[in-house]
Amino acid sequence: MQSSPWKERDVITRFSSSCQLHSQQIIRGIGDDCAVLAPDGEHDWVVTTDMLVDTVHFDTSWHPAYRLGRKCLAVNLSDIAAMGATPRFILLSIAIPVSFSKEWLDQWTSGFASLLDEFSCSLIGGDTVRGDQFTVNITAIGTTRKGRAILRSTAAPGESIFVSGELGSAAAGLILCREAGRVGSLDETLCRPFLDRHLDPAPDVACALLLAESGLITAMQDLSDGLATDLAHIADQSMVGARVEASLLPRHKNLAEVCTAIGHDPVQLQIAGGDDYHLVFTVQAGKDEELLRFMNSRKGPPIYRIGETFTGSGVRLQHGDQEVEITFGGFQHRSTAANTPSVKGE
Amino acid sequence: MQSSPWKERDVITRFSSSCQLHSQQIIRGIGDDCAVLAPDGEHDWVVTTDMLVDTVHFDTSWHPAYRLGRKCLAVNLSDIAAMGATPRFILLSIAIPVSFSKEWLDQWTSGFASLLDEFSCSLIGGDTVRGDQFTVNITAIGTTRKGRAILRSTAAPGESIFVSGELGSAAAGLILCREAGRVGSLDETLCRPFLDRHLDPAPDVACALLLAESGLITAMQDLSDGLATDLAHIADQSMVGARVEASLLPRHKNLAEVCTAIGHDPVQLQIAGGDDYHLVFTVQAGKDEELLRFMNSRKGPPIYRIGETFTGSGVRLQHGDQEVEITFGGFQHRSTAANTPSVKGE
Repeated sequence: MQSSPWKERDVITRFSSSCQLHSQQIIRGIGDDCAVLAPDGEHDWVVTTDMLVDTVHFDTSWHPAYRLGRKCLAVNLSDIAAMGATPRFILLSIAIPVSFSKEWLDQWTSGFASLLDEFSCSLIGGDTVRGDQFTVNITAIGTTRKGRAILRSTAAPGESIFVSGELGSAAAGLILCREAGRVGSLDETLCRPFLDRHLDPAPDVACALLLAESGLITAMQDLSDGLATDLAHIADQSMVGARVEASLLPRHKNLAEVCTAIGHDPVQLQIAGGDDYHLVFTVQAGKDEELLRFMNSRKGPPIYRIGETFTGSGVRLQHGDQEVEITFGGFQHRSTAANTPSVKGE
Repeated sequence: MQSSPWKERDVITRFSSSCQLHSQQIIRGIGDDCAVLAPDGEHDWVVTTDMLVDTVHFDTSWHPAYRLGRKCLAVNLSDIAAMGATPRFILLSIAIPVSFSKEWLDQWTSGFASLLDEFSCSLIGGDTVRGDQFTVNITAIGTTRKGRAILRSTAAPGESIFVSGELGSAAAGLILCREAGRVGSLDETLCRPFLDRHLDPAPDVACALLLAESGLITAMQDLSDGLATDLAHIADQSMVGARVEASLLPRHKNLAEVCTAIGHDPVQLQIAGGDDYHLVFTVQAGKDEELLRFMNSRKGPPIYRIGETFTGSGVRLQHGDQEVEITFGGFQHRSTAANTPSVKGE
């Protein structure tokens, strides 16, 4: 991170020029005490905020700046998607150490702006300050049809639980990034999908909007802290139990091979590994087939049934002939599990 | 900052229990991927975000935690007020060093919650993370009548410029805080108003709402970085010049005495000192008296005419028989001015 130093005014100018406005509801964007927005009264608004800190939530020493800029935004778009909402407006605060270079920040900004553009979101405000640790705070605002936001608290017993993508890939990718030396001999092509999922995860916005449109989803949230934790929020807030079946958890076809090489248990990564940014959701009882037909007819991405809710509490994992409690955590069934990194917190 | 360590779950619980919800527009507050809000279509929304970092924007080594919690919020309420809007919804992210105590955070939270309550604002979301520097990011959302937000860009030549309170008090207070040793002999009662203004500034929300209601204000913004900088934003964005008269700048009756003791020039603090969180605004040509009568009839706080806009650019200070350019900065007219602290950045 050498070469030219950054200047606050340059950073702001760079953001303003890199980020287009995509909404006629924006009366005033960047440049005043506040942005001014004109809601239409036909939509509800969903709002989320997330703070990400260097060395806690990511590592600027190896995370490429462009991909990190994308990921910081992706994390927030995923929260909006988890409400069944369309992401619209973004506010960005960054604290930047004086040692960071203009070039690194330019890369970060380009990545951030590229994802903003992919999802037609508008940057409407922000703040650029000095700090000892590179710190990013994003506030995202989205819209849903009135009364149609999908909460965590509205699942009922006897409903199927689905996820919208493969689990454990980001966690495997994180281990590969951190232990690049030790696993250096692994094939690049083999590792690529896992590295990509950790470094630059795509939020499941399109899938979430289709799910919301189906009208068949009872509760939803995104997978940021890992299935065991995130599903526990739904179970907890909906006051139901949740049982998932290890053999039903979708995984990349090479997850087992990579896990052997890095000495981790694939099911452990699927349960406790965070950062996948897929969705976990429950479906109205008896409507699984209808949902699958709907998603198919709309050329939606694959979704995977992984278990069901029941009258009770907590999250349970059916694994072979064992059933273990995994509420707000992982499960550990062999000695190497102690090495599982903590991939949490976003 | 010793004694018991903080735990993330405790901090979140503390916030949830300390902060009441004040709006029926909140469909879902803290506890889901996003908060859900129901705009009514009759109001515009204004949104601002600010990041404040320990040792950059404040100093936890001497700023009492309770008052700092209040000030972090006040800074954002002031931005909302500057649009002529009512603050409504708050999202709070904090990065906390592991060394900070639960007691300190409890104090900070109590202060934050007290100001939230004073202004009937609702905390609807947030994030609590670890970080090496205590860092606070607040996003504030407010409402105005449709089309009535007061921008920076809409002043015209030939209008009076007003401020809503005394200038330079917070800057004097900051110097007193930083140089407590050197100025230790000063009378406590003499110093109190300046310390208060720096440590716990009251945002001019009620005044701003009256000004908005008057319909006579053409442009407004809050005084966070100092008059020379903040007025330059209005001049710049409205494409007018602004001239202010040193003798018209309101000051606390004891500012001169304190300035003599601390070796600073009062006018310099009034022009370049930040953190006062009053408002600077322009008034429709020929409507000064009407505005003053309106404010008086509504028992509003005093407002002070300090100058006028003209066809041109930049900000100029009339000081005795001198006229000096102070655009985006201060003016310096004697040797001690080099010691003026930089009180900027919020």
